[in-house]
Amino acid sequence: MGHWMCGVCVVGFAMLLCAANAGGQEQPRLNLMPLPANVQSGSGSLPIDSSFSMALTGHTEPRLDRAAQRFMRQLSRQTALPLSAKPAAKSTLTVHTDHASKEIQELGEDESYALSISADGAKIEAPTPLGAMHGLQTFLQLVAVTPEGFAAPAITIQDKPRFPWRGLMIDVSRHFIPLDVLKRNLDGLEAVKMNVFHWHLSENQGFRVESKKFPKLHTLGSDGLYYTQDEIRDLIAYARDRGIRVVPEFDMPGHSTAWFVGHPELASGPGPYEIERGWGIFDPAMDPTNEKTYKFLDELVAEMAKLFPDHYFHIGGDEVNGKEWDANPKIQEFKKSHNLASNDALQAYFSGRVQKIVTRHGKAVVGWDEVFIPGVPKDIVIQSWRGQASLAQAAAQGYHGILSNGYYLDLGWPAARHYAVDPMSGPGANLTPGQQQLILGGESCMWSEYVNPENIDSRIWPRNAAIAERLWSPQNVTDAASMYTRMRAVSGDLEWLGLTHQTFHPQMLRRLAGPDATPEQFAALRTLADVVEPVKDYTRGATAPAKATSATPLNRLVDAVPLESDPAHRFGELVDKYLASSCRDADAAAQLRAQLSTWRDNDARLQPLTQQSFLAKEIAPTSHDLSAVAAVGLAALDFAAKGGAASDDWKAKQLAFIEQANKPKAQLLLMPAPAIQRLVEAVGAGGSCASAK
Amino acid sequence: MGHWMCGVCVVGFAMLLCAANAGGQEQPRLNLMPLPANVQSGSGSLPIDSSFSMALTGHTEPRLDRAAQRFMRQLSRQTALPLSAKPAAKSTLTVHTDHASKEIQELGEDESYALSISADGAKIEAPTPLGAMHGLQTFLQLVAVTPEGFAAPAITIQDKPRFPWRGLMIDVSRHFIPLDVLKRNLDGLEAVKMNVFHWHLSENQGFRVESKKFPKLHTLGSDGLYYTQDEIRDLIAYARDRGIRVVPEFDMPGHSTAWFVGHPELASGPGPYEIERGWGIFDPAMDPTNEKTYKFLDELVAEMAKLFPDHYFHIGGDEVNGKEWDANPKIQEFKKSHNLASNDALQAYFSGRVQKIVTRHGKAVVGWDEVFIPGVPKDIVIQSWRGQASLAQAAAQGYHGILSNGYYLDLGWPAARHYAVDPMSGPGANLTPGQQQLILGGESCMWSEYVNPENIDSRIWPRNAAIAERLWSPQNVTDAASMYTRMRAVSGDLEWLGLTHQTFHPQMLRRLAGPDATPEQFAALRTLADVVEPVKDYTRGATAPAKATSATPLNRLVDAVPLESDPAHRFGELVDKYLASSCRDADAAAQLRAQLSTWRDNDARLQPLTQQSFLAKEIAPTSHDLSAVAAVGLAALDFAAKGGAASDDWKAKQLAFIEQANKPKAQLLLMPAPAIQRLVEAVGAGGSCASAK
Repeated sequence: MGHWMCGVCVVGFAMLLCAANAGGQEQPRLNLMPLPANVQSGSGSLPIDSSFSMALTGHTEPRLDRAAQRFMRQLSRQTALPLSAKPAAKSTLTVHTDHASKEIQELGEDESYALSISADGAKIEAPTPLGAMHGLQTFLQLVAVTPEGFAAPAITIQDKPRFPWRGLMIDVSRHFIPLDVLKRNLDGLEAVKMNVFHWHLSENQGFRVESKKFPKLHTLGSDGLYYTQDEIRDLIAYARDRGIRVVPEFDMPGHSTAWFVGHPELASGPGPYEIERGWGIFDPAMDPTNEKTYKFLDELVAEMAKLFPDHYFHIGGDEVNGKEWDANPKIQEFKKSHNLASNDALQAYFSGRVQKIVTRHGKAVVGWDEVFIPGVPKDIVIQSWRGQASLAQAAAQGYHGILSNGYYLDLGWPAARHYAVDPMSGPGANLTPGQQQLILGGESCMWSEYVNPENIDSRIWPRNAAIAERLWSPQNVTDAASMYTRMRAVSGDLEWLGLTHQTFHPQMLRRLAGPDATPEQFAALRTLADVVEPVKDYTRGATAPAKATSATPLNRLVDAVPLESDPAHRFGELVDKYLASSCRDADAAAQLRAQLSTWRDNDARLQPLTQQSFLAKEIAPTSHDLSAVAAVGLAALDFAAKGGAASDDWKAKQLAFIEQANKPKAQLLLMPAPAIQRLVEAVGAGGSCASAK
Repeated sequence: MGHWMCGVCVVGFAMLLCAANAGGQEQPRLNLMPLPANVQSGSGSLPIDSSFSMALTGHTEPRLDRAAQRFMRQLSRQTALPLSAKPAAKSTLTVHTDHASKEIQELGEDESYALSISADGAKIEAPTPLGAMHGLQTFLQLVAVTPEGFAAPAITIQDKPRFPWRGLMIDVSRHFIPLDVLKRNLDGLEAVKMNVFHWHLSENQGFRVESKKFPKLHTLGSDGLYYTQDEIRDLIAYARDRGIRVVPEFDMPGHSTAWFVGHPELASGPGPYEIERGWGIFDPAMDPTNEKTYKFLDELVAEMAKLFPDHYFHIGGDEVNGKEWDANPKIQEFKKSHNLASNDALQAYFSGRVQKIVTRHGKAVVGWDEVFIPGVPKDIVIQSWRGQASLAQAAAQGYHGILSNGYYLDLGWPAARHYAVDPMSGPGANLTPGQQQLILGGESCMWSEYVNPENIDSRIWPRNAAIAERLWSPQNVTDAASMYTRMRAVSGDLEWLGLTHQTFHPQMLRRLAGPDATPEQFAALRTLADVVEPVKDYTRGATAPAKATSATPLNRLVDAVPLESDPAHRFGELVDKYLASSCRDADAAAQLRAQLSTWRDNDARLQPLTQQSFLAKEIAPTSHDLSAVAAVGLAALDFAAKGGAASDDWKAKQLAFIEQANKPKAQLLLMPAPAIQRLVEAVGAGGSCASAK
């Protein structure tokens, strides 16, 4: 097994080292994500072939049997080895579980496990099934193709999570996301050891849960796109099987237009209401002054508290603009008579009432920042979309919190930017250890204005794995380059689970190109698609050609490209390598030249497509820009090769052009542009050895 | 709508014409497959946007409602338009059905339909739901991306099938194929208007049907991989919804080892028996001399005849080698006492007995060639794996037949070769019209030695669409170039149905390369994978590195590449274009040079991968060959460019080398080799104008 390549080798508690072992051979690169708390590499490896078998010892339960079957199926998919679930005389892998976990999974349960692999066999030991299942996922990530066959490297791992609350929120209201899509994403969460699925179930755009008590909620508030209670129980069982808690969210008093279609009496305005089709913050809000509102919510929470077994119950609470309250004389009167000086105070009143209802039904409240009001019970959990400061502020006052600011997957950030966000950084670092304990972890958020079943996987994965690592691995695991290497490896494994974040892409491009595109045109489209990214942050709406709604097809290039361009990322690294070399690296220069030439020539190949397909038409300017900036980059290389300096005039002109190309067109960003800008800026700044050669 | 490109325009009954219309504009290329019996292009087109709606008129039934929902879902997938199923004031598409079809779909029912599309709307008219559903599929194929939006061209189609029996057989015994995989393939059959799924359910390697009467058949004969009766009913309903009959096959008296694991008393040998793991023809066969065999079959057929509603019941009958019969003295005695001179005669005796059983249970027999014996009832259908001659022979004697010889998908033929096989060609052409009526159509066959759920779609599709066209479209629709163009378009549409023939490929390559492959290495692997094909016909077993069994992983490059290389096909066309030009086409020469240079340089990029992954190791020689033959091709172009002739010695040497490269390695064929051979052979054979330029 001497051919493993060295990437990340981890020795000791979260130390990242690349150490040559005794024989002077390089250690394997371990494509583990999240990186375990403690890893020690051994020597040799365990071959994985069709004789592979496993055994469960210690505590047993059907969930573990199913986890074992799932493990065998996944191992078989990764390797295409036909594996038999039949017990063998000597098992390759033994999984020992000490005792059961809680009947209903609780926050903070022991999730630790130990995994040891030698040339002879492997063993997972865990106090509870939760740790055993995590250990199985770690094992799957260790199985790799080697020159001799599939194998897992000899290793010893002691692992446990840094934070007890590691979640993903999916908004199923703005675009409905069917159960099977959620399930494959739960498979993804299991693979990266996240343990909470936060189900954002109600919004202005849809109420997605069957209510037997108030059926008008889902029948009139969902266009028929909702989950039956049987389906919800099915999903919760599916999640429990994977060590994942399901926290439901019913967002109120704002974000609730869809409730009012069937129940206008809950609203502060006169109605009638329709399901909201657009995106943004809207006026409708519940009437916090009407006792009938609380009676209704009491009955609904009673029903939903039974349906969702988790101890936590999310009541939303975000973004009430107060316009309906201001426009309603009765509500104004109520504020005066109750000494509620502001709408914030009115919302606090509402929030307090709802929190009492939720508590009465045996649940603890989770809410967005806004629900954090003086005097709320201490078992509330604040979910911070505003940032670490509000999280630290809550903790300083003895309240639990989880971080979501910095983890919004829909903003299109590169994985490294999410990865750099730590729940404990900033003000959190100044908390006492006791206060720090109150910060429970975090949740990535997938808001669904611009995702549907077709592209949602690609908006969550693989970047969510970086957030999962942030929340699981030791705080000092921060090397972004290592993270990217491992994330790309894990990304491929996730596809074996049925996630479609990689496979969706070519098919969406095919739709855009049409069946009559020639292979050359299609290749040119891929070349362009490979190096553009959708606009970031909240600019998608602002830059849209027409106001987007839930009826807007998501079939444009902006919907079809990944949120992070690997080829552009690598091109940037190559430019930096080239510029960093004191004597410009000839090999890097040749690679840059080849890449830039391809891009320069791409527009001519792509343009016919922009005539044939209305979906391709809008990308013509971006295609032209790519070719043009590539030509600029080639000119910059030419200057460097000749050892000459460009005139200031030339540089200024090129930089102005690149700046223009850097502006989004068709809501796409041309990702190689900044690196080409660096090439131009460096012209004449030394480093060329052309004359010396 | 003036930008449609001209490809195939069809006017009149199966006339293939490209006609400019009145305005001198080119007609659209219609990506229809199978090509309808009669197509007339109109002018203009019907825009397809999110206001699209449809209505069903005339005869109604739940199946039609489901077909309409399926149609809307598929249209929405193709376009990503959010379509609502709600009725509109004026429907874009009206589907009128005259009356119901038979409760149990029968051979030869009316499947015709008419489709007319104008700028104002579209109408499908059909006597029965079968035709209506075909019309919906045709409409889906007509929706295309245009410069202005999605649209369907104005057109008038009158369509009906040439043959009433158009099927696909899948062998689910050698490798078990789960229900969901079968279902997506039924979706594919619906898309190309095939109407029979022939379910090859029992084999030496597995008995795949739950039998409540004889449960040892499936429990001991299937490794637990079988369909429950509920699942079978589910699949049959799924097929009926798509206008597809399900014909079950229970292969006997040979190909039946799996039966004998639980029921050795049926066999001619002493037993005990185990499920067969290997491939080939095996000795075990039922004992045709034992009355208990017939009693057992009578009870089993009684059970299965109820489970499978189709009128036809396939009893196999192929490939009995007779060894167990020869070795059994009792059977020898029986032959003598019954005047059965040969094992063929003994099998005829068996076959006659079984046919009587099947007939008694209300079914008509289908069997492979071997069941065609003197005196069998006239309602038997002969499925010919031996060829058109045996089909014609049967028809001449008044028997029905279907053709499968020439339609074996597992042999890896190019689509054009299947396409050229006509059930009526050869001896069939000399039959009287009445006899020709007895030839009912054909079935493609997917034998499953080397397919599993992961790659089976890619072994069936898109080539099966060519066979579907052969069996549906008029006999004079034979242009292979047109077929390929349309097949590639339809292939993309099939992926929207959930078929994975295109998407499976990159993921299998990723497994082979491992996660540590660099993007450059992976690109090099794709370049090689793009131009190799698995060995053809029955050579896969003969050239295997080790004897393959059902436990052999299908994770090699030979399992991961499509059966027909598009890039190699196009390269061959380009070479021919280049060679055909009297003055060598400079543009073609430049394209050839670019392609050959990429291939020449590919081996250096790929070789590191062959060191890292045991799965990549075996392709090193093929990778080397690709680079080497590309270099030869470049040298040939150089000679041509210089206008010179190569020495006979040089040519002989190169041709010998190409011949060597043409030999399969790692069971892969290097598909560009023959075209490069043509380049070398043409050196000095004129055509160069280098000196004149």
